[in-house]
Amino acid sequence: MDKDQHISQRFNDDLNEVHELVLAMGGVVEEQISNAIRALQTGDNDLAREVVARDHEVNGYEVRIEEECINILAMRQPAASDLRLVMTLIKSIADLERMGDKASKIADMVLAMGHGTRNSNPAFLRDVGVMADYALNMLRRAMDALARADAEQAIAIAKGDEILNQEYRSALRRLITYMMEDPRTITPAIDALFIAKAIERIGDHARNICEYVIYLAKGKNVRHLPLDQVEQSLQGK
Amino acid sequence: MDKDQHISQRFNDDLNEVHELVLAMGGVVEEQISNAIRALQTGDNDLAREVVARDHEVNGYEVRIEEECINILAMRQPAASDLRLVMTLIKSIADLERMGDKASKIADMVLAMGHGTRNSNPAFLRDVGVMADYALNMLRRAMDALARADAEQAIAIAKGDEILNQEYRSALRRLITYMMEDPRTITPAIDALFIAKAIERIGDHARNICEYVIYLAKGKNVRHLPLDQVEQSLQGK
Repeated sequence: MDKDQHISQRFNDDLNEVHELVLAMGGVVEEQISNAIRALQTGDNDLAREVVARDHEVNGYEVRIEEECINILAMRQPAASDLRLVMTLIKSIADLERMGDKASKIADMVLAMGHGTRNSNPAFLRDVGVMADYALNMLRRAMDALARADAEQAIAIAKGDEILNQEYRSALRRLITYMMEDPRTITPAIDALFIAKAIERIGDHARNICEYVIYLAKGKNVRHLPLDQVEQSLQGK
Repeated sequence: MDKDQHISQRFNDDLNEVHELVLAMGGVVEEQISNAIRALQTGDNDLAREVVARDHEVNGYEVRIEEECINILAMRQPAASDLRLVMTLIKSIADLERMGDKASKIADMVLAMGHGTRNSNPAFLRDVGVMADYALNMLRRAMDALARADAEQAIAIAKGDEILNQEYRSALRRLITYMMEDPRTITPAIDALFIAKAIERIGDHARNICEYVIYLAKGKNVRHLPLDQVEQSLQGK
């Protein structure tokens, strides 16, 4: 192997390593969200405390991956598709970190509500469960699309975000109805509302990652474009 | 001027141009936020429609600046502080774009509320006005710190975010009190709550930009560290 091959091999190793780290970070964030929702549904304060304590792990991934990406940019000066991959990873970790924050905030609210969660409106807990399953599925599939640079899957997931937004609006309407029927439920309902909003935002972040994957695979920035238009223009290629 | 100087001159021109574009984007976002709040306070639906329509301008800045940053990375392979500046700009525009989104969402809510805004609780409108002034001031000073790579100012602004968070929590408590006193106000109070939350998030994004400025000036990633610790460690340098 000559010197150039050595260098390009090391470059690929570096890039693969950081790509793996991002997928690992995605796995931790998924676990954090799933545990936060379980803590909410079961009123498990120990689990909620664990989620809050593990948030620094997510943050640590963000700092480490960003440093490695900057090193790759400085030392290896990637071009074309490798540069797109580095950019995609840098942007994806910002969204993953924010999803981790949402998980930690949900867990914080479980702790602040104390034993109140067990008395939460069962219809609300069901709504949240449905929304959280949907958002987690979006995240899982987005990370899978990122692992395989799969633009078609990314578009399909991004389009599905509208379903989560509808679920959120329905949950919000039901919460407002409960509050009006029984004003004593206003305080817990406001907590519930912020939890529903946090899950809806997790879906938005998963959608963002999908948009970066389309850019990675197709070299085209599709943020702020309607998804139907993106789909047509990619098929037309 | 020899060839190397030409190249380095062109590099500086490119970098300055994109830096200027980010500051211009910050100016538009500031205007969008300020107009959205004014539309809310005066019930001016035309102004609200203008804010919604101008959101694509903010998005256009994001797409263009990101492309120029990627070009600089690909063609000029910046190192050290220049690379840090490119990274800082890439990250800052993501936060600016999200602040623009918040402005547009507030304007959307003004339109959805119809003439209801003029009947909004005056104490709430006052709360929102105070919060928005504070958040806008954070944004303005954060862009100024970015323009001058001023880490000391960036720390001072970031520390001030806690004041906005306290304002937000007070506004939230007052809103809950109104709802409990008069359940007919629940629907407008929920709108109000989301507007207050959006302003609080604008402060978070301004704080994020401040953290990137500290990284730009000092080469140290201070995200996820307590600000007092950051301040001490920078003074100790």
